[in-house]
Amino acid sequence: MRISPRHPRYASLAVRAHLARAHRQGVVVPEGLIAHGRGEAFDYLLGERSYAGARRAERAAAAWLLAARHPVVSVNGNVAALAARPLARLVRAHPRLSVEVNLFHRTPRRAARVAARLRAAGIRTVLGVHPTARIPNLPSDRAFVDRNGIAAADVCLIPLEDGDRTEALRALGKRVISIDLNPLSRTSRMADLPIVDELTRALDRITAEIRGRRVAIHPGVFRPFDRSAALAEALATIERRLRRAARAPASRPSARR
Amino acid sequence: MRISPRHPRYASLAVRAHLARAHRQGVVVPEGLIAHGRGEAFDYLLGERSYAGARRAERAAAAWLLAARHPVVSVNGNVAALAARPLARLVRAHPRLSVEVNLFHRTPRRAARVAARLRAAGIRTVLGVHPTARIPNLPSDRAFVDRNGIAAADVCLIPLEDGDRTEALRALGKRVISIDLNPLSRTSRMADLPIVDELTRALDRITAEIRGRRVAIHPGVFRPFDRSAALAEALATIERRLRRAARAPASRPSARR
Repeated sequence: MRISPRHPRYASLAVRAHLARAHRQGVVVPEGLIAHGRGEAFDYLLGERSYAGARRAERAAAAWLLAARHPVVSVNGNVAALAARPLARLVRAHPRLSVEVNLFHRTPRRAARVAARLRAAGIRTVLGVHPTARIPNLPSDRAFVDRNGIAAADVCLIPLEDGDRTEALRALGKRVISIDLNPLSRTSRMADLPIVDELTRALDRITAEIRGRRVAIHPGVFRPFDRSAALAEALATIERRLRRAARAPASRPSARR
Repeated sequence: MRISPRHPRYASLAVRAHLARAHRQGVVVPEGLIAHGRGEAFDYLLGERSYAGARRAERAAAAWLLAARHPVVSVNGNVAALAARPLARLVRAHPRLSVEVNLFHRTPRRAARVAARLRAAGIRTVLGVHPTARIPNLPSDRAFVDRNGIAAADVCLIPLEDGDRTEALRALGKRVISIDLNPLSRTSRMADLPIVDELTRALDRITAEIRGRRVAIHPGVFRPFDRSAALAEALATIERRLRRAARAPASRPSARR
């Protein structure tokens, strides 16, 4: 079906159609579509823009990725479908950042497809297609990683991650930067630096921060980030939006009576 | 993958797996999976239970369905996948309620599959597989209806409906009862009686109310329902939950440091 650009929800309908296509192509799994819907709801509640706290987190994430000795970004089907190009821009701005495919629902074919998407967007080296190591105490396929990638990383950027894996990565002593629209998710609550923002907006802002960076970065020195304040601000942003909506809840665009 | 019943999100993981299966069987479309995710997020924010305002709306819906001369419930792929049995129980409690298949992404095959699910759950008569009428001013396939079903209904129960169709049904002068977890959606804002609750919980409560009904119902006489207050209460419920979460946002189930 063609979507009219004048539809009040055109932008999100277009993204949905794009994801449905990526699903038919074997990149996105059904569970990934459901997860996207959850994100959509939170983005809607957050006003579908990067509020001040999100921008602060993105600035801090840029500094951490630059200070890292071995930063790695973990990519699943949804990330590849939604943000291969923003990710390629980030890697161009920060070539030391490794890119690794990591799938909850892993098949060799699907891993190859996700990697192909990333390569088509301009990312030359993609790890994780043939895993060479394993994260302990993680029963899902997400435990399979690359010896020189996530297994060796000091800082992991994990967009659209699940709580179990976030916990497992932290248990290995890695610094975890998450991108997740749900400020109440286990991922957001477990991450060292939770970014509560939409994926492409977050990646583009991190890239811009890396490009515009003037201050010297000392490898291995990470500026502290107040994660509690960041999550509280995300919740307060949603609350503010809801209070505004509650004042005019029953306005009907057009009505019978 | 098998999900452990001890996982903190077991219930919603099991529903997701069930929906993914219904998708592979051609009952649920990709867009339906995304829509389910949106609902999940709102259910989470509402505390995953029927708050007092939802229970009030379900009581009122039971009265309206009994007072209706020709009540019809509209069923799409997600409704058939998630709630064929609760729906069959509702129809047993209120046999005058007609059931009609109505799909946004309609193919004759998919309509037949959705109808088959309903029949397998014990619903004998399923309308809408071969549409005989059309709702005016609605460009999508959801315009196709049954002459003796939705087209002739005075009260429509529309679970998991989109805003355009809700608007079109109201423009035809029908009383619309919606079931939608998003209190800010166009459907919730357009409906005469918006139920902001999870589908199976809502249907089971309506059924219980119909069964337990003691007060006489006069056909065609509908007790007024304060929709603005109902939506405001849904928003206030979410706000309360967020405030509570904001007080302890950074509690980590287990931590490195």
